[in-house]
This record gives sequence, structure tokens and C-alpha cells, in this order.
Amino acid sequence: MLLSHGGGGRASHLFVGSVFGRLAAAAHPRQDAAVLPRPAGRIAVSTDSFVVTPCEFPGGSLGTLAACGTLNDVAVMGARPEWLTAAFIIEEGLPVDLLTRMVTDLQRAADEAGVPVVAADTKVVGRGAADGLFITTTGGGAVRDDAAVGSDRAFPGDAVILSGTIGDHGLAVMAARAALPLEPPIESDCACIAPLAHLLQDAAGPAVHCMRDPTRGGLAAALNEIAADSAVTIRVYEDLLPVRRTVREACELLGLDPAHAANEGKLIAVVSADAAPSALEALRSHPLGREATLIGEVADRSDGQVRLATAFGAERVLDMPSGELLPRIC
Amino acid sequence: MLLSHGGGGRASHLFVGSVFGRLAAAAHPRQDAAVLPRPAGRIAVSTDSFVVTPCEFPGGSLGTLAACGTLNDVAVMGARPEWLTAAFIIEEGLPVDLLTRMVTDLQRAADEAGVPVVAADTKVVGRGAADGLFITTTGGGAVRDDAAVGSDRAFPGDAVILSGTIGDHGLAVMAARAALPLEPPIESDCACIAPLAHLLQDAAGPAVHCMRDPTRGGLAAALNEIAADSAVTIRVYEDLLPVRRTVREACELLGLDPAHAANEGKLIAVVSADAAPSALEALRSHPLGREATLIGEVADRSDGQVRLATAFGAERVLDMPSGELLPRIC
Repeated sequence: MLLSHGGGGRASHLFVGSVFGRLAAAAHPRQDAAVLPRPAGRIAVSTDSFVVTPCEFPGGSLGTLAACGTLNDVAVMGARPEWLTAAFIIEEGLPVDLLTRMVTDLQRAADEAGVPVVAADTKVVGRGAADGLFITTTGGGAVRDDAAVGSDRAFPGDAVILSGTIGDHGLAVMAARAALPLEPPIESDCACIAPLAHLLQDAAGPAVHCMRDPTRGGLAAALNEIAADSAVTIRVYEDLLPVRRTVREACELLGLDPAHAANEGKLIAVVSADAAPSALEALRSHPLGREATLIGEVADRSDGQVRLATAFGAERVLDMPSGELLPRIC
Repeated sequence: MLLSHGGGGRASHLFVGSVFGRLAAAAHPRQDAAVLPRPAGRIAVSTDSFVVTPCEFPGGSLGTLAACGTLNDVAVMGARPEWLTAAFIIEEGLPVDLLTRMVTDLQRAADEAGVPVVAADTKVVGRGAADGLFITTTGGGAVRDDAAVGSDRAFPGDAVILSGTIGDHGLAVMAARAALPLEPPIESDCACIAPLAHLLQDAAGPAVHCMRDPTRGGLAAALNEIAADSAVTIRVYEDLLPVRRTVREACELLGLDPAHAANEGKLIAVVSADAAPSALEALRSHPLGREATLIGEVADRSDGQVRLATAFGAERVLDMPSGELLPRIC
């Protein structure tokens, strides 16, 4: 990458055509914005910058993450993702083949989710002014008519369901970064969970009270946010939390709590207790939700607390992660 | 800024609340996406990363630019901007008061445009992994029913109109970067041109064939894109191009062509010849368009070329800018 690739001139145009031609957005490279059909209802919009390092890791990449992460944020609002935009900040000297892989991964993840990339932008900054590549995506889509989800809608008695194992993404990235000699390597769970969210809503409709994807800060952060916003205590059971053996071992090695580690393809759902069986069945019908399981329940009204019941019958507070945590995990 | 401010944990939450509380998006900080009302027609969506350096310059800042730049891209599609998202990539060690000014500038520019910031994101990267602050914004809004604009819709005989002087933004940033002792300093023209676009459409409706905001690559890049996409030759008259004296002098000093220098608050409109007088009148009725003027016309069908007629009766090709141009100008 040369600085001139980002200047808006001839080099910039040629470059955008050659690398970004694979983005659907490039079909209209000369327009400054995309024009889309009117969506069918209220729309949900979400944006995220992705700065993960390293930008390739087992199970995914910065490109995959940039698509899935934003689509997931739209999906957990009860919406069907309908479009995605992508803005690339590229450090001069970034190998073009690496950039090409990231663009390809992003487009592939969007294709798999059935979501067009409708607009894109590139900026090139000098050597040392960025660390390789940052991608910011924004996504939107129509909120389902039957969606009535919000982090303030967890009620005492509700069931807390998790679509699969925790910590996979965080530990995959940490292990790749530290070049830990794990065999087999931990794979990120990076995936678009929109189909899971839709199956869940098809099965349980308005009995689905909250949906979250537990990314930065992990399960603990997501549950603490729900507990605080809904003014309830959430109780989860340590021995019900699904954690892969390799993830658990790497967590012990690195002194991390899997409940604080990031995920990029998981769904937390708070549903009314009577809808829990059909919700679980719906999630398990999809490959991404095969390991879906009940992990706890919403207990009393409170000022917002997450309690972890251990296998020994004790209970401790599962707090927000504090301090440095895992920088640049997504 | 500390790395822990971006980790998704407690420090991250407190920080987001303190600095980003001024963003309207922070009203719902715990949701991963915003939910918006159904827009009234087709929607236009645009995204851009902003990496300008220095991030404060006469007439604007990275924050102002991040709001205006994207709103302008939406407006030139014939749409009314209705929402904006903002994603911040922050280098560890960035002074919090600088970040606060940028967030405030962004929110103020959005407020002035009457557009809510509906979602935001922050990522913090280590020292040396970014250059201070990068902001990526995405905007959207409903396309006006009477809009029929596109860079492929310039027809022979059409008038080419420019809303004001060229090169102000590019030279303001270059002068600030080089600490040129200009008196008075050149001010960026950074502004939201959506009101100009609407006045123009109100006055000329479907007689407005193309609208563009000439940013990176300046007037030359924007006109070349229109010429190529419409397969026409565009002729502009050098002595009709409005250029401030200070900008012209700085261009001579730096060896730049003002037609290649970036603008951030200008509108190029290609309109049918009979609509040109009312189009000019409409633009001049707004403070941002007081200096609006006819600069040329669409000539014959061709493979796309922009010709500059000089004051001496000669004509030369006004090419796309090539090479390094002005990196990190927006």
C-alpha cells in the first residue's frame, strides 16, 4: 500500500477497483452513497470499529469479524440485517494480499449472511500512523414486527439461555497473539448469529425479552448490563456454563475467567420461563446453536447484580471485568 | 486515554459515560444498535473514515468533518440525512480534552444539521498503533421523491454550477500542517451542504441531474467522475472558477492546483440549462451558496473528459489528480 492509494486521485481509483472490486459496494464506486429500498418496518442501525490483532487467527479474521460483529449487533435488536457498509483505514506498506484476504473474508461473511455491502470507503495513512488495518462497519435492517427486546426487559422468573460455549474468540485471539503452542489450536467462534436470533423469535416471539451477543467483556459484561438495565439480579450456574476444555486450560494458563473473555458468535437470550423449552429447541435446530443451554434465571428485583452459583453450593458476584482485560480483541 | 478505556469492562463503561455522554447516541449506551422510525422512501446510506491531520485547523476539526462529510455524501444522493453513527478509534495517550472537543464538534455539527447521532462505538489501541484519533461515520436518510440524480445523468447542454470557492479545506489543512504563516489564515469550508441540496431540488426538481461534493481530489476528481460515468466532455472556464486570493497564493507557494484541492462544504450541480437561473438563485439564497456560480457546461458525448478553457482562449485537459496528492486531508 502506498499513501497515493488513498488520496482520491488516479492511483486511488485504480487501487480501489483492483482490490475492492470484490466488494459488492464497488458496483457503484463513483457514488458517494448507496440507495436502498424502503425497509419493511422500524430499522435498527449499529456501528463498530474492528482493530483486532493479529488480524488473522484460527476460525476467523478481522474481515470476518467486521462483518459478523455488526450484523450480530443488528440481529440482537430483533432485526433482520439488510445492508452493511465498510470503511477501511489502511497503513501504508500493508501487504496488498493481506488486505485482499480481509476484503474477501468480509464479503464472504456478508454473502453467507445474505447481506449486501452497499457502501465502502478507504483511507490510507502513513507508516506508523495505524497498525496495519482497521475496519469500521455499519449495518442496518428492519426490526421484526414481533420483536419486543431490550436490555431493560428481563423480568424475575425469566430463563437465561446461552447458544453455546464461551470464551472461544477471546482465547483464540490471545493464543494467536502469544503464539501459545496449543494443540489443537483454539478456534474463534466468529459467526453471524442472525439465523439463531430469527429461529428463536420464530419459536418464542414476544416471550423473548432480551437478546445480546456477549463480545468485549464476555458473558459477564453482557449479563451485568442486562441486570443493571432491568434492575434485577441474574443468577447463573457455574457448572452449566459451556466452556471448551482447551479454552478452560488456556484461561487457567493466562489467569483469565472464561466469563470475561470475548465471544463473536454467541447469543444470550432472556426468555419467559414457559417459552424456555421451545427456545432451546429452536436454537439447537441450527448448527450454531447445537450446544444451546439454560445457564440461569432472573431472580429478584435489585439494583442489578449477576451472581454465580458454584458447584459447591456457594454463590459469588460475577462482576463486570475491570482493568486492562483483553485489548484489541475485536 | 488508557488501553483499559477500550476493553469493554468497568473502566470502559465509566469512560464512555463521561466523554461520550454528550453524544445523543449515549442515551442508550447499553444497546448494541439504535432503532429508528421507518423512513419515508428509498434510503441513501454512506460511510467514510476521517483521518485528517492535524485534527484541528482553522474553520473546522476532525469532529466537524466526520459529521459534515458523511451527511454531505447522503445529501448529494438527493436524500435528507436522518441519522448518523460514529465509531472512534483512539490512540492510548490521546488527551481526553482533545477527544472531548472532537466529540463535541461532531455532535454540534450533527445538531446544526438536525441529524441525531444514533449509535456510537469506541476502540482504544496502544500507543503508536494509531495516530491520535480516527472517526468513521455512517449516515442515512430518505431519498426525496423528486430526486433523479446520478453521476451518469449529465447530458450535453447541461449547465455546471458550483456553490462557492474551491480549495479552501485542502489548503487550510495543508497550511495548518506546514504551519505556514498565512495572515489571515485560510479557513476550511467544512459545512453540511444538505440545506443547499434541498433548496436546489426545491427550485429545480428533476432538472437537477447530478450533485456531488468535491472532496478528495477536488473539483477535478468530481468532474472527471461525472464525465466518465455520463460519457460526456465537461468544459469549465478557468476564469469562472471561484478561488480565494489566499488559497490561490498558498497553492502557488505549494505547487498545487486549486482544482485538485479538497473541499468539504461545496456542491457541484449539473442541471438542465433552462433550470440554471433558478438553480443559481436558490443556491445564492443560502449563506453557504452566496458565491454560487456557473462554471461551465456539458459539451459533447465522449469517453469522458474534463477540459479547462483558459482566459487566453486555449483549452487543456483537467485530469484526475495523480500521485500523492494531499494525504490525510479528510
